[in-house]
Order: sequence, then structure tokens, then C-alpha cells
Amino acid sequence: MERRAEGEGDGGDWGKKSWRFLSEVRERSPLIQCITNFVSMDLMANTLLAAGASPAMLHCLEEIPDFTPHAHGLCVNVGTLSPDWLPSMKTAAALVTQLGKPWVLDPVAVSASDYRLKACLELVELKPTVIRGNASEILALSSTSMGPDKGVDSSHGSLDAVEAAKFLAQLSGAIVAVSGAVDIITDGQHVVGVQNGVAMLQRITATGCAVTALIAAFVAVDPIHAFEATASALSVFGLSGEVGMDMARGPASLRIHLIDSLHGLDQATVLSGVNITNMS
Amino acid sequence: MERRAEGEGDGGDWGKKSWRFLSEVRERSPLIQCITNFVSMDLMANTLLAAGASPAMLHCLEEIPDFTPHAHGLCVNVGTLSPDWLPSMKTAAALVTQLGKPWVLDPVAVSASDYRLKACLELVELKPTVIRGNASEILALSSTSMGPDKGVDSSHGSLDAVEAAKFLAQLSGAIVAVSGAVDIITDGQHVVGVQNGVAMLQRITATGCAVTALIAAFVAVDPIHAFEATASALSVFGLSGEVGMDMARGPASLRIHLIDSLHGLDQATVLSGVNITNMS
Amino acid sequence: MERRAEGEGDGGDWGKKSWRFLSEVRERSPLIQCITNFVSMDLMANTLLAAGASPAMLHCLEEIPDFTPHAHGLCVNVGTLSPDWLPSMKTAAALVTQLGKPWVLDPVAVSASDYRLKACLELVELKPTVIRGNASEILALSSTSMGPDKGVDSSHGSLDAVEAAKFLAQLSGAIVAVSGAVDIITDGQHVVGVQNGVAMLQRITATGCAVTALIAAFVAVDPIHAFEATASALSVFGLSGEVGMDMARGPASLRIHLIDSLHGLDQATVLSGVNITNMS
Repeated sequence: MERRAEGEGDGGDWGKKSWRFLSEVRERSPLIQCITNFVSMDLMANTLLAAGASPAMLHCLEEIPDFTPHAHGLCVNVGTLSPDWLPSMKTAAALVTQLGKPWVLDPVAVSASDYRLKACLELVELKPTVIRGNASEILALSSTSMGPDKGVDSSHGSLDAVEAAKFLAQLSGAIVAVSGAVDIITDGQHVVGVQNGVAMLQRITATGCAVTALIAAFVAVDPIHAFEATASALSVFGLSGEVGMDMARGPASLRIHLIDSLHGLDQATVLSGVNITNMS
Repeated sequence: MERRAEGEGDGGDWGKKSWRFLSEVRERSPLIQCITNFVSMDLMANTLLAAGASPAMLHCLEEIPDFTPHAHGLCVNVGTLSPDWLPSMKTAAALVTQLGKPWVLDPVAVSASDYRLKACLELVELKPTVIRGNASEILALSSTSMGPDKGVDSSHGSLDAVEAAKFLAQLSGAIVAVSGAVDIITDGQHVVGVQNGVAMLQRITATGCAVTALIAAFVAVDPIHAFEATASALSVFGLSGEVGMDMARGPASLRIHLIDSLHGLDQATVLSGVNITNMS
Repeated sequence: MERRAEGEGDGGDWGKKSWRFLSEVRERSPLIQCITNFVSMDLMANTLLAAGASPAMLHCLEEIPDFTPHAHGLCVNVGTLSPDWLPSMKTAAALVTQLGKPWVLDPVAVSASDYRLKACLELVELKPTVIRGNASEILALSSTSMGPDKGVDSSHGSLDAVEAAKFLAQLSGAIVAVSGAVDIITDGQHVVGVQNGVAMLQRITATGCAVTALIAAFVAVDPIHAFEATASALSVFGLSGEVGMDMARGPASLRIHLIDSLHGLDQATVLSGVNITNMS
């Protein structure tokens, strides 16, 4: 009983927080630079626009010194990584960190190759504000972050995603978010779970990438509260999927209704729909 | 009274002109080469297809000498510019200009960096038939086009978009179009305003890029009348957005209905819906 | 009478085969690596996801030795070819051929340039399991494959698509599919025709690319029966378009309903809707 009451109290609080973040994004329209994969650019830009933010897909190394200081946040995504894009990612990440602005790393398919794993570890060293991935990505990044001598041994194989996320958060100083049936968000100490979203979102390409960009927008309007911003962004995105699902006939129409719903999300829906609970 | 009558006459005339351009595109299906940003490729190709044109997203420098002479028009967009794409843009632009075919420049975010500004100025020197941007892009390009000695001084800061567009048109020899609540089109002397479209189009990524490609298709079927083609393309695209808006629930569904409407636009809708007025 | 009965028997058989392929893809979720053009990435990934497969858009040369051995199939598409992508295409293709896994080549606009034609011929030499193109692409590839001495002479100009496809299949060892009002599939001896699909699919960019990726997924679950897999994929995709067309108002909404329909396609619809006939 008490637990449930507490849960309700948390939920109400998180509903207000989430609404505040979304309202701030709509009001201030933060400029979010995205250096991301080719597949996700369209959905990522449209997600940011639907939330009220201003996307800028700009990856050119020559432009970063001029442009990046004007951005309020940065989203780096390694989905279609190649050697000609990595320097831009690192330069932009280092610059925003130096300027005290937030940036978010999406280590897509970090285990796809040694090249990609090494690139992601180098990016983690550039102090992302938030790292968001799925369980296998966070597990891979967490276990490898222990250093070359420790590698991926059996003890880490048994780590569940929550422990891996906490470990990676402690090691990197980043908020770590693990997407799944329940999204996990941790700062290394506290852990919350987000229970919004629908399973069919996984049948739409780049929804993970898109929510990472939304996290960047939420964090950009309040970098001090990156933990709350991250949980709120995941919840608001998932909630938009829930609302959209009522009208969807399949993954393609869900994608349309997801974005429409994010654009139209009102206070009452956010307050009643946000489902974030303390898991610490 | 006389002014209003004139306006009505213009409107009717522009409706017929716009319908003629759209009909020609549908009938002749001009091949439009696009060297554009990664974000816009999908919407741009689908816009051209919906209008009846044939898109070709081909950016490879090695292919331009063989392919570009077959294109009826070229669309160059610097949205995700990088040093490995700029030579293709310049080579293709120079070639179509040399062949007497039309091309359209979209100087996306021209002020994002000195690198991009310089690239756009170099492209302007290659004699685009049309330049389309938003007010800040056209203002930036116009004031910088005055030369390094004059730069952006306070007098240009006070230039409004119409004056900037006229100035850029005179300087470059291009038709200049400024997208906004009212789109402005000028050849340096004459000015018309297009009052079609809906505000929500701005919440969809790449709609500006897409209308630039549509301009390329309209100009391609009648390069002699680039001024009329440009105004007509902006009006037809905006009108498609108006028709689509009736069915839309948000930006993502508007994008779908915009393209569907462009594909299905009939003569009666064009004749009654085109809203172009003389502003000279 | 006998012919019609045979046709019906074939149809029933093909319906069962097609349903078996689709069911296998849904059950086993093959990992399909795509090295494809920028325009098609979104639709291709969403097509694979809707069919139940796992797409991986990964083109980085450095990652291929680590990643490609894990893929169950590869899709190579030259739509936005450039010299920095071609080595990845060739390396990945050679590797999957060496590993005995299937790969599919989409020679988009093969005649666009000598550069592209040469690249496609080099790719054909790397033993694709399937080659899918439209009639002009297959004709171009077929006639040029005869070698530099024979070139494109008048006799080949008179080849129709079926003969060209059979010739290319014999020469390359690949299954060759020619998309059109009736899709033609041949192994060099046998020929079947697929009469599914709707004309409006041609007004959506990248539907050809998407069906090639679907072929890769179908072939990946049963590489021994690449001929049947190819015909089934073309039929299932076309049938999804037919089902989607009932709800579509134009090309953009057809694209949505196409993917939704592919995701939701049930056994009864496949058994009754698949329209594949023997043309040998």
C-alpha cells in the first residue's frame, strides 16, 4: 500500500517534471546539433521539430569551430560510422564539453567491430552528459570500459543491465540510459525505470536514435538536471508512442502517429501518462 | 477598387500559369539531378515523383560528365555540406550552366560557418537560375555578396528581405525566392508574393529543400520563364500543404497528405487556390 | 484446360512457398547487412523490420571483417555510388561469397555513367546470388556483360527483358529478377512471372531498393532455393502494395500502408493473393 502510494507520488512528481521539460523545449527551441547516421536523420530531425526543438544535421569538420558554439546541445550517434566522420564527432564532442554544454552519445551497435568499440570508448572519454543504448550496447560498453587487461570476463557476462549501467555511469560520469521494455536511467547511484512505450516501436528503424536526440533537447534546456531530463525524454517519447498506437495499423503508421502525438502532447496526457518509478 | 480588380486578374492568370507548369511536369517528367543533403533526400525524391518529375540523387564527381548532360535541371543544396561533396556541386553547376540548362541553389544555413558561406558564394558565381532560401539565408547571402570590403554592416542589417532579394537577384542574375509566411519572388525588378502554405510545414524537416527541388522541375520544363515557374512551384507546393492540412493531425501526417495532395492536385483546385499577387 | 489447371496448381504452390519464406523470416529474423544508397536507407530498413528481419546499414570498410561474417545476407545497391563506398561493397560481397552466404545486387541506374557500369560489372564478377533491376538496367548489364569486344550491338538492342535476364543469369550464375508490370525471375533456364503490385509503387522513391532488400532476407533463410525466394519476395512485396492500395490516397500514404500491410500480412492473404506463374 505504502509502496503504491509512494509510486503514485513519484509518478505525479515525474509527470510535472516531464511536462516542465517538454514545455521548456517548446518555449526555448534549443538548437541541437546532430552528427548521426544516415538512416536516422529524417526521423531524428522530425522528432526534434515535433518536440519544439531546432535540429541541425551538421557533420563537417571545417564548420564545427564556427557552428558548434551556437548549439545548445549535441547528439552523437555512431550508427553508420566511418573514418571520415569520426574526427567530426570527436571534435564537436570535445568542444561542447569544453564550453560546458551537454552532449549525448548513442553507441549504436558498439560491438559490431573493434573499430566501432574503440571509437565509442574514445567518445566516452570526451565526457558525454548522457549515454543511451540498449542493454547489449550498454553491457558491451560497460565491460570493455574496465580496460584492456580486464576485458569481457565471465563476471561481467553475468552483470545485468542495471548493474552495467551503474558501473558505466560511475566510470564515465555520464547519466546512462538503457532502453528496453522498462527503460533504466541511472547516475551511478540513483536508478529510475520508465514504463512508457509500446513494443512495436522496435519495428520502426531509428526510434532509438530519435529518443537519444530528444534526450539531448531535454538536457539542453536544463543541463544541471540531466538525470531528470533523460528520464523525462524517454517517458515523453514512449508516451507519444502509446498515444500514437491507438491510431496505428502497423509500424509505418505508428511512426506517423508517434510524431503527431509528440507534437500535440498536452499537459493532462503527460501528467496522467508519465510512468517513471524509483528503482534504487 | 482598381487594385483589387487587378489582383483578381493576376490571381486568375497565375492560377492558369501554375496549372500549365504542373501539367507540363506531369507530361514531360523532367529528369532532375539533386546534389543535396542527407536529411532531405527522401522527401525531395518523393516530392519530385509526386509532381510527375524524375529525381536522380547522384553526387559522384566521376559520374557527372556522363550523367549530368542528360538531366533537364539540377538542384544543389548545401544542407550537409562537406569538402568531398562541394567539388561535385560546383562541377555539376558549371556544366549545366555551360549547357544552357537551369539549376537551382538552396543555400541552407549559409551563415552556419565561414566555410559554408564561402562555398555558397562560389556556387552563386556559377550562375544559378534560381536561389531559394529563408529570409535570414537570403539576407546573409545578399549582404555578403557585396564583397569582402563591405561585409555585413549596419545598413544591411536594416535591409528587409524584399530589398535583399532584389539586390541579390540583380547581383547574381538569378531569380531569388524568399520563403516565409508570404513567399517573395523577384528577378531584381518585379516582385510577387505567394500566400499559399500552412505554418505547420515548418515543423517538417526538409520541406524547404523539397520545394526547391520542385522549383527545379518547374523551371526545367520552361527555363525561359524561370520567374513564373518559381512562383508557381512555391504556390503549388504551399497549396498542396493547405489541402493536406485538412486531413492532418500533426506534422508527420501533414507530410504524408502534402505529398498525396501534390500527386492528386487537379485543375479546379489549382485555379481557385493559387494565391500569387504582384508586389512590385 | 490443362494449362489453367496447372496455373492454378502453381499459384497454390507458390502461395504456400511464399508464406513459408515470410514465416521463416519472421521466425528467424535474419541479419541483413545493407550497403545502399542514401535515399533508400529509411525505407529499406523499415521494409526489413516490417518483414521480421534485422537490418544493419553498415558500410565502413574497417568494420567489414568483424561484422559481415555475422550477417545472414548482404544487399548491395549502387544508387548513390561513390569511390569511397565501392571498396566496401566489393569487400563485403567477396567476403560473403567466400563464406558461402547469399548476397543481392541492385544495379540502380547502371547506365548512368561508365564509372557505374564498370563498378556493377566488377560486382557481378563477385558472384551475387541474385541481381534485381528494372528492364533497362538488366538490358544494359546483360548486353555489356558480353565483353568489350561485343559491346551493345543491334542484336542486343532487340533483346527483350526476358532474354536479357536469362542471358545475364547464365553468364553470372545469379538469379536475375526484372521488375515491371510483370516481374520476371529466371535462373537462366526457368522463368516465372510475378503479377503482384500496383502502378503507384513507382511513384514512391526506393521501393525497388526495398524489394531488393526483402529478396536478401528471403534468400538468407533458404539460400539453396534462391529462385523461389526471389519470386516469393517480389510477390509478397507487391501483394503488400495491393493491400495497402485499398487504404491509400496517394503515393505517400501508400508507402505507409505498404509497410503496415507487409507487417500484418496473414496466411490467408498470402495464399490467395500470391500471383506467380510459370513462363518457361
